[in-house]
Parts: sequence; structure tokens; C-alpha cells
Amino acid sequence: MLYPLVSVNTYRMPLDPRSPWRTPEQRAEEREAKREAVLRTAARLFNERGFSAASLDEVAARLKVTKPIIYRHFANKDQILFECVRMALGQILEAAAAAKTGPGKARDRLMALMTRYAVIMTEDFGMCVVRTGDHELSEASRKEFRKLKRKIDRLIRSLIQEGVADGSIARCDVKMTSFAIAGALNWIAKWYSPDGAESAEEVAGAMVALLQGLLTRRA
Amino acid sequence: MLYPLVSVNTYRMPLDPRSPWRTPEQRAEEREAKREAVLRTAARLFNERGFSAASLDEVAARLKVTKPIIYRHFANKDQILFECVRMALGQILEAAAAAKTGPGKARDRLMALMTRYAVIMTEDFGMCVVRTGDHELSEASRKEFRKLKRKIDRLIRSLIQEGVADGSIARCDVKMTSFAIAGALNWIAKWYSPDGAESAEEVAGAMVALLQGLLTRRA
Repeated sequence: MLYPLVSVNTYRMPLDPRSPWRTPEQRAEEREAKREAVLRTAARLFNERGFSAASLDEVAARLKVTKPIIYRHFANKDQILFECVRMALGQILEAAAAAKTGPGKARDRLMALMTRYAVIMTEDFGMCVVRTGDHELSEASRKEFRKLKRKIDRLIRSLIQEGVADGSIARCDVKMTSFAIAGALNWIAKWYSPDGAESAEEVAGAMVALLQGLLTRRA
Repeated sequence: MLYPLVSVNTYRMPLDPRSPWRTPEQRAEEREAKREAVLRTAARLFNERGFSAASLDEVAARLKVTKPIIYRHFANKDQILFECVRMALGQILEAAAAAKTGPGKARDRLMALMTRYAVIMTEDFGMCVVRTGDHELSEASRKEFRKLKRKIDRLIRSLIQEGVADGSIARCDVKMTSFAIAGALNWIAKWYSPDGAESAEEVAGAMVALLQGLLTRRA
């Protein structure tokens, strides 16, 4: 049997040459790296198999650790799913906040947000957001999931409104435009294949160029 | 306890006044009506609870029949789910075929198709299509599910190409435009609420008017 040259858990934080003990900062960083490795591996597996068929045994096996190691970081599979979708929604929110407060016309800022959003939808955490049914989350997580999605929707709507006000976006039905943009972008998670001819950036660029048509006065 | 004035299974096919026995045609029609009642009830339940949490016991209870009655029509829950998504995809395909062969400019025919598609997405079978993960279907059903979706995608792409050729649709990235339209329309199934202020027809009208922006030369 062939073993991969580098396996996930061979990674070690560099030791301080003056002391073989890790500093609290290094320990915190290492813990965070482990947590994220669990999430990335789980997200990929959820997308491959579907949430209910995916098992933490397999997540552990892929990381070459035992299941109790995973339970040091997460209470259960539901919490892992929620943290996966929260990662993607957090990334989108970050881009939305930057777009909201950045310089320039609202339309350009909205397009920058859409481009980042599209790329996130080609990645494992983003795919989790679209593939996860509300019913797969616990009630508390579901509430939080919806709250984050509403927050993103509100930021997109307010950018559209700003654009209508500064003249960079044509007058439109703001709610419907926000839903159309979100739908077209979210759908990328359903059809995009990393094995396809186009890179995530190419898909994002082409999709956002096309969606400009929703923001522009008709010829 | 209050009972509804009309419950689903009080419906009886009208008997021929000349004979109390049903004709073969009436029996076939009755069988079809029963089959569809199971599908409608199941689709609603899948959308409310999620597929894995929904039980055929509850479908039977809502129809005021026993579970064996349901098994006269369907082999199992997976088959029921597949038939639900097939209903919606069949409706979309029907509209797509009509749009493909109808008279007039391709753009108008595409818009008629999009309007019908949008309305289907506000209904229980349409919602099932968007909410159903590939992993929830058996392998054979999943193949068929994908085949039907590809068929719809091909018809939409060919309508877009026709429109570019007859001058009614602006030159565009056909694949990306088809995916953007499908995404925006499919997403309706995620956000539309029948309890909201807008009817399905109003939502469809507003969404399709907006999506015209994807088909039009820029100002």
C-alpha cells in the first residue's frame, strides 16, 4: 500500500528554538488549525455524500485521527454542519460589509461583492450552504442560519438602494433583484464542478458580467 | 373535536346513473386521482419537514387511509419523492416544449416558459425539485432526475440561441445565461411563501420582467 507523502496530521506548529514548549498563542493557533481541518474535511464529505449519509467516522478516518479527537472540537455532526455553513456565510458577510463601507459607486461595490460571493459558492463551505436543508439543522442553528442569510440579503438590498440613489443602478424592484442575484449566485454551488474547464474565478467573472444586466437600464 | 366539512377521501367518482359499477375509464381516472393525492400530500409534507423526517405514516394519516393503501400505488418513500420531482420537471418540460415549437420570436416564447417555470416553483412539486438533494434519491432515480434537468437546460439554451439568431435576444454566454435564469427561478422555491403578500403570478411576473435584463443589450 502506498502512503501519501504528506498527510493532514503530520503538520506541526514550528517550535520556538529557545523552548520546546509551545506558547499559548501557538497552542491557540494549532487548535484553530485543527478545528478548521475538521470543518473542511466534513464539508467536502457532506457535499459528496449528503449530510445524513456522511459519518464522523469517515471524517476522522480522512484526517487519520480517532472520532473522540473530533469531539474535542465539536459536540456533534449537527454542530459541524452549522459551523460549515457559518464559515461561508461569514465570508460573504465580510465581503458585504466591505462593499457597504468601501469607496466608489454602489454598483461597483455590489459587483465586487457578487464576484466574491460567486467564488465562495464554488468552494466546499459555500456548497454546504446551498445544499443544506433547513431541516438538517437543529432549531437553534436553523434560527442563526436564517438570521445570517437575512443579514446578507439586507446588505445586498441596501447596496442596490444606494446604487439607485447614486445613479449607478437602474430603478428596480429591490427585493426581487436581490433574490434574483442570490438565486443565480447560489445556483453556482449546484452546477459548478472543480473538474470542469472553467476556474472559479472565470465562472465568477462571467456570471457577474451577465448579472450586470439586472442593474442596467434597458436599451 | 371539529372535523373538516370536506375531507380528501369523501370524494367519489360520479356513478353512471344507468349502472352502479364504474367503467374501466372511471376506474383508471379514480386510480390516477388517488395516486396524485398521495403525491401532493407527500410533497407538502417533504417540504414542511424535510424528506428524511417525513413518514409515510403521516402521509397516510393526512389522507385518512392506512399505509398499505399507499403501497398499492408506490413501492416506497424514495419512489414517491422521485415521482414528485418528476411531476414538476414534467410540467416544466411541457412548457419548454410548447415554447420551443410555438409561434413568435424566441424571446417571447422563452419569457412564457420562464413565467410558467416561476409559478411551478411556488408549488409543492416545484419546491420538492429544489429542496431535494441528489443524495436523497436512489441511483436509478438520480440518473433520471439529472437527465430531466439536463433536458430542460438544453431546451432553454436552444431557445436562447434561437433568440440570438432571430435578433430578439442580445448576444450572450448561452450556458451562463441559462444557469442564471434557472438559478433565479429555482430560488423562488426557497424564498416564496404562499402566506406572503404576493401571489405566485405576481412573483412570476415581477421576476420574469426583471430577468429580461439578462436578454437585452445594455443601455
